[in-house]
Amino acid sequence: MNIKNYIEDLAHKAQQSSRILAKSSTHERNNALKIAANILEQEEQMLVNANLKDLLESQAKGLAETALDRLELTKSRIRAMAEGLRQIVTLPDPIGVISNLNFQPSGIQVGQMRVPLGVIGIVYESRPNVTADAAGLCIKSGNGVILRGGSEATHSNQAITHCIHLGLEQARLPKEAVQMIEVTDRASVGELITQEKYVDVIIPRGGKGLIERISRESKLPVIKHLDGICHVYLDNQIDFEKAIAIAINAKCQRYGVCNAMETLLIARDVAENILPRLAKHYQEHNVELRGCIETKKILSTIKLATEEDWYEEYLAPILAIKIVTGLDEAIWHINHYGSHHTDAIVTENFTRARQFLTEVDSSSVMINASTRFADGFEYGLGAEIGISTDKLHARGPVGLEGLTSQKWIVLGNGHIRQ
Amino acid sequence: MNIKNYIEDLAHKAQQSSRILAKSSTHERNNALKIAANILEQEEQMLVNANLKDLLESQAKGLAETALDRLELTKSRIRAMAEGLRQIVTLPDPIGVISNLNFQPSGIQVGQMRVPLGVIGIVYESRPNVTADAAGLCIKSGNGVILRGGSEATHSNQAITHCIHLGLEQARLPKEAVQMIEVTDRASVGELITQEKYVDVIIPRGGKGLIERISRESKLPVIKHLDGICHVYLDNQIDFEKAIAIAINAKCQRYGVCNAMETLLIARDVAENILPRLAKHYQEHNVELRGCIETKKILSTIKLATEEDWYEEYLAPILAIKIVTGLDEAIWHINHYGSHHTDAIVTENFTRARQFLTEVDSSSVMINASTRFADGFEYGLGAEIGISTDKLHARGPVGLEGLTSQKWIVLGNGHIRQ
Repeated sequence: MNIKNYIEDLAHKAQQSSRILAKSSTHERNNALKIAANILEQEEQMLVNANLKDLLESQAKGLAETALDRLELTKSRIRAMAEGLRQIVTLPDPIGVISNLNFQPSGIQVGQMRVPLGVIGIVYESRPNVTADAAGLCIKSGNGVILRGGSEATHSNQAITHCIHLGLEQARLPKEAVQMIEVTDRASVGELITQEKYVDVIIPRGGKGLIERISRESKLPVIKHLDGICHVYLDNQIDFEKAIAIAINAKCQRYGVCNAMETLLIARDVAENILPRLAKHYQEHNVELRGCIETKKILSTIKLATEEDWYEEYLAPILAIKIVTGLDEAIWHINHYGSHHTDAIVTENFTRARQFLTEVDSSSVMINASTRFADGFEYGLGAEIGISTDKLHARGPVGLEGLTSQKWIVLGNGHIRQ
Repeated sequence: MNIKNYIEDLAHKAQQSSRILAKSSTHERNNALKIAANILEQEEQMLVNANLKDLLESQAKGLAETALDRLELTKSRIRAMAEGLRQIVTLPDPIGVISNLNFQPSGIQVGQMRVPLGVIGIVYESRPNVTADAAGLCIKSGNGVILRGGSEATHSNQAITHCIHLGLEQARLPKEAVQMIEVTDRASVGELITQEKYVDVIIPRGGKGLIERISRESKLPVIKHLDGICHVYLDNQIDFEKAIAIAINAKCQRYGVCNAMETLLIARDVAENILPRLAKHYQEHNVELRGCIETKKILSTIKLATEEDWYEEYLAPILAIKIVTGLDEAIWHINHYGSHHTDAIVTENFTRARQFLTEVDSSSVMINASTRFADGFEYGLGAEIGISTDKLHARGPVGLEGLTSQKWIVLGNGHIRQ
């Protein structure tokens, strides 16, 4: 069977099974997840062994240490995967929820019902825990899923998928609803993202190059995450302790994450007072500072930022700093240079807080809180399938609701249109 | 200026102005619409004259009579356009609405705020009233809009856009938020649908060819409407009067519309009883019937339907009829052959009604009501920018809410992530 037929066949099966999943009960879907969680724990040794094969092969190929770390399935990571599935069980079932059922002047009753999207294609790199997370969220939301993980994790992904299949089977749900693509060359992604007949949306998770390529070539809607160029703006009316806590936390709590601050904007009125104190903290964290000309007048030893710095997602202990005249310039800077991901203001001023909230065009806009909170768990979604930097359909952290859509329902009693 | 620069410049202006519109007050946007409505009525003669130029040029080019009719701006149509804008004024403002603002365990408060999408590109054919409708909905929802109407209506569209510009100006809002593309060759559409930097979504309205081309070539998200292959299923437990009323209304109330029934499915148990009565009604309406083999056993004089008929959107007084064993086959037929637009069941049975509602995968699913109700006005949206057959973002009739998205908002008091 060639790759085209292989993917088409698998996508077709996913669609057929997704229809059974879509009409299954909350209890059945939760049951499948609970059983799968138990099996993951029972089969711990099998999973570790499968993962060991991946690790050894990847090591022989010279995979980098950080990538090997992401690939590794320790016993505690296996327990965390199982716990993740159990957490999904506790989330309310979004499927079938009917809202806004109102009578219209014609006498019909019109509302909306939440339904699964159908089949979700997930393309990701070599973190095996994504296999369980993604399958869990898709099963819970009544969707079929096609998993296309990185080649380095093939044995691990097969082993995890096997456990999930057993969970579905024992809960009397079709195991074909969770499909794993075992051919991990580029062509398999190319085929997956053109299955318009069987697949409803593609969610790529991984490096920017992968995501850009998929967005460009996909014939299907893509829920994607591009840059996280996040800003914190320190207003001219601030509580210094809050400002320092947030500016340090947003940058230093973790560096390689999309919701870390990359550019700090400071109102001119407070810059001279707060910058030396901030610089001391950043120095303790070994964060390299790059400032605008005005910033350099206050912190003379730091690097001068270039125009490129304002566009940069460092994902590293580097921070760009710019002094602005006030809120309007801060908002302009964020909307112009930012990536519409997550941006925060620190202020005690009600009117400016409100203006920031309204005018910053980002998927998360925060007042007096660290950008690091932009996360599905922190937002109460329970789990996230990804973070969307798109505006349509789902914006920001995407949980179960992002894997659903709403159809209109109309109830009548023989009503006809005049 | 070449076409590429022309469109880019216009899209850039639309984006800049859209940001001013996005932060304007409900009162300002409503005021612009009210003033534009008044000006449309005051400038009736100017509009009729501009339209006359279009009509004469199109007549000389040999445009078909039905197309000329759609192109014509009569005084009553101008008043209807103005009334349409006034109706949009009465709709609640979706922008800035904050929902689900809840405290999370970390102490932050997380909710969602409804915001405009940004800039909407609308590509349509030669119905000048779309110019006023689309601009009105976009202004109300705080979006910039780029209008690309059919070449036949250029003078009419210019005149209408002029009135809307005056409304925006007199309400002290930027008239550049409503842009009209005056170059109506294919290249201008090609440029518009690749303005990823400035345009957020494309809504094509018109023939299937246009929509398919735009979907294929667009680099931007498209809210689209393809086929309307709508079904009515007459269950084996029906009220005959309701069944006949709905089956006739869904087909005969209007033929050339996307929410008209194209295939009638009938449970075997009631077919023999109801088909002759239905056939008599359809005959009175001169509707050509094409039936499956079983149907032909009851209505011997009608045509035999072929496999292609089940896939057909006739948009004409033609109806395909199929006898099915029961609900399961009906649902299978609808999900397999249909276009996921609008489908209805007629039944007195509660359990089967509920099953139909859950299992039919269409943007509108109806019980005991005519498919002809699938419409923004009938659903209480007040007005519609189109009907979406997509699953993501907006499904079914798209009103103001479909022109918005939600961003996350986070309120804290110096909160940092642990």
